[in-house]
Amino acid sequence: MSRRQLHLNVNLLHSGVYPSAWRLPASRPDAFIDIGHFVRVAQIAERGKFDAIFLADTPSISDRIDYRPLNALEPTIVLASLAAATTRIGLIATASTTYNEPFNLARRFASLDHVSGGRAGWNVVTTADAAAGRNFGLAAAVEHRTRYERAHEFVAVVHKLWDSWEDDAFVGDKATGRFVDTAKVHPIRHRGPHYAVEGPLNLPRAPQGRPVTVQAGGSQDGRDLAAATADAVFTLSQTIPDGVAYARDLRARAAAFGRPANAIVILPGLATVIGSTEAEARRRQDELWDLVPIEYSLARLAGTLQIAPERLDLDKPLPDPLPLPPNANHTMFQGTVALARRDNLTVRQLLRALGGGVGHRIVVGTPETVADDIEAWFRAGAADGFNLMPDVLPDGLETFVDAVVPILQKRGLFRTAYSGTTLREHFDLERPACHRPSAAALLAG
Amino acid sequence: MSRRQLHLNVNLLHSGVYPSAWRLPASRPDAFIDIGHFVRVAQIAERGKFDAIFLADTPSISDRIDYRPLNALEPTIVLASLAAATTRIGLIATASTTYNEPFNLARRFASLDHVSGGRAGWNVVTTADAAAGRNFGLAAAVEHRTRYERAHEFVAVVHKLWDSWEDDAFVGDKATGRFVDTAKVHPIRHRGPHYAVEGPLNLPRAPQGRPVTVQAGGSQDGRDLAAATADAVFTLSQTIPDGVAYARDLRARAAAFGRPANAIVILPGLATVIGSTEAEARRRQDELWDLVPIEYSLARLAGTLQIAPERLDLDKPLPDPLPLPPNANHTMFQGTVALARRDNLTVRQLLRALGGGVGHRIVVGTPETVADDIEAWFRAGAADGFNLMPDVLPDGLETFVDAVVPILQKRGLFRTAYSGTTLREHFDLERPACHRPSAAALLAG
Repeated sequence: MSRRQLHLNVNLLHSGVYPSAWRLPASRPDAFIDIGHFVRVAQIAERGKFDAIFLADTPSISDRIDYRPLNALEPTIVLASLAAATTRIGLIATASTTYNEPFNLARRFASLDHVSGGRAGWNVVTTADAAAGRNFGLAAAVEHRTRYERAHEFVAVVHKLWDSWEDDAFVGDKATGRFVDTAKVHPIRHRGPHYAVEGPLNLPRAPQGRPVTVQAGGSQDGRDLAAATADAVFTLSQTIPDGVAYARDLRARAAAFGRPANAIVILPGLATVIGSTEAEARRRQDELWDLVPIEYSLARLAGTLQIAPERLDLDKPLPDPLPLPPNANHTMFQGTVALARRDNLTVRQLLRALGGGVGHRIVVGTPETVADDIEAWFRAGAADGFNLMPDVLPDGLETFVDAVVPILQKRGLFRTAYSGTTLREHFDLERPACHRPSAAALLAG
Repeated sequence: MSRRQLHLNVNLLHSGVYPSAWRLPASRPDAFIDIGHFVRVAQIAERGKFDAIFLADTPSISDRIDYRPLNALEPTIVLASLAAATTRIGLIATASTTYNEPFNLARRFASLDHVSGGRAGWNVVTTADAAAGRNFGLAAAVEHRTRYERAHEFVAVVHKLWDSWEDDAFVGDKATGRFVDTAKVHPIRHRGPHYAVEGPLNLPRAPQGRPVTVQAGGSQDGRDLAAATADAVFTLSQTIPDGVAYARDLRARAAAFGRPANAIVILPGLATVIGSTEAEARRRQDELWDLVPIEYSLARLAGTLQIAPERLDLDKPLPDPLPLPPNANHTMFQGTVALARRDNLTVRQLLRALGGGVGHRIVVGTPETVADDIEAWFRAGAADGFNLMPDVLPDGLETFVDAVVPILQKRGLFRTAYSGTTLREHFDLERPACHRPSAAALLAG
């Protein structure tokens, strides 16, 4: 496909991105642990020809579960189950480089790629959350810089493991009895500051060669990690100029790593609240907002900013200055502060603009409004597509698929049928060649 | 169900337990990475009313892949996919306590339990294999005793995490907006010699309360681990007296831990080669044996015994004495040596008796012969059932389901329909109560 096409993932956040989504009359509160709910959403997204399903994750309770659902089910387990219930849509799961072993993670995603026929993606996160550290023997969270140093090495190890079997290493010749040509299976012999991994992986190379690598960090370190290793990024931008600046910055960094300009698909988060009229959309947003307890929104904002909730006055702007805390989620912190400063919002106005904890940009309106917004970002080069966060699931996605997707298709922006079978094909990315390490490199190990 | 019933798992070893299974005309060599193959086998087993599918695993290449398939796909990924393609059969995956983090493992199996509606089981192994250690930053394998010390603590942590949400902690009350009653979600605050895990798990309690815990160690340490923690054991016994002695020993150890006599389901491995006549079964076994290269069988035996292949003379018995090596797989070592000594076999005869690398006991014959064998073991108290290892998959399982299962059902030994929906119900095990830690224990913790 030569013409640039829009890419759409759906961020399958349990009952929807609004913290109050589970409280709507049509929602089932137990959707977050009901695989049937995940299947329904995935099948709607596949009907809408979406590129992928995206699952966020943190290995801890990182939010106020007294008020809202959490990402509970382990994402690769969910996606392996969805692989059996879908045929084309990509399957992207978040997994932490700080709290996994590279061998196990490489194998799990390569297995998901085999099981799904080449539809797996790994969203690389380093996990800022301090509660996660305490579930893995650490008294405190790992410091930002250290997390990213480890992440660079971790991703490199995973990529080496994914390349440790040449594409034709598996033979399976009944006549000779030769099962694998072991001359084409290579230990990786990685010895780095953080990891020592001998390899090879105990699994033939995946259908995609390497599952798609996604990255979601907005910090300087996060951008460098994405520029060096990612096939796609999940970002947070509040305005088109922000998005354009981000894309320019990221592509420049990628070029510095010797990568082509189109090597990375840029997908900002986009929350949607859709109605058949503007007024209906606003009423829906009001209803969702009214069901978010204010103490929840405040606690959530204080958590993003890593300050005491008492420092937030509902009728005043954010405290100023507001320095970046060392262990904040940089993307969420910067997006939130930028939004508040841009329109000089009071905390109460900011909470509402954030959807009471949605975090990402929210577009509210008719299907035409939403399609116009998406087209404007896409044509301006602020986005190659979006990581869509419907207000309520499956309802908000169903509306998007039935009402917005046809507009995007009519405008020639979005596919009307899948042209490939793998996530790499959906994203218009090449299948990476197997970089067989030279004998000299191995000896130098 | 008051009457004692037989339990049957199928060990879903890629193309079958015979190393040469993949070379038969009807076999597909790529079955080991084809999820469609796993689905077919699982659906046949479910048609046969089996208790569970069992997946073995090692996080390394631990066998001669130039000659035979390996356990390549990560087991929980496979089972999550099979959960979507089946409705009743249990799903047991092997995972190592030495090369996982307790939080991640507890969450993955609890997620599988949610996704499958209460059908998950975890087969606890400590992974003797030295190659595995090198994939996780270790220069050598972890020593046997240390592995088991860690395993005891690891399993305890996992069980605590599985109990960290009380059964009714999830509320989801739309009217009040209360999502979770956080007073019923408890940190576990585990601080032990090997692990420090704060908890709670970020997932409501699983449908089974705790997924079924299976253990497969035959060493003294392995038996103690099973006696203390397991709901079921996967053992290796070559004779009925061996099986009876094992069961007596294990039940005595369980009693010493204060557990009732029927707390553990004992399932020896059983390889089957079935023909419509005895002669046809023997021909099938001959065909499978002829396709196993002798150098493979020898290397495999040398690996089990942890000695150089040159020390094995095809026409002489095993070397004597043959001390237990420190990092051997005790179950396989002892089963192999016992088989050789019992009938004073030469190495060549032993290789054949082992099926060229099958390892477990092999029964060869007609459906009646196989059913008689199973009934004899069951009635003698040498087994509560079997971890079945068909010679070739799916073919050998299909024969078992169509020809042996009806005989066992006619004799009143095996269910004709599932009476429950969870693996615990299939195994006739109670759903464990949620042992909420007392405040005092937490403070002391």
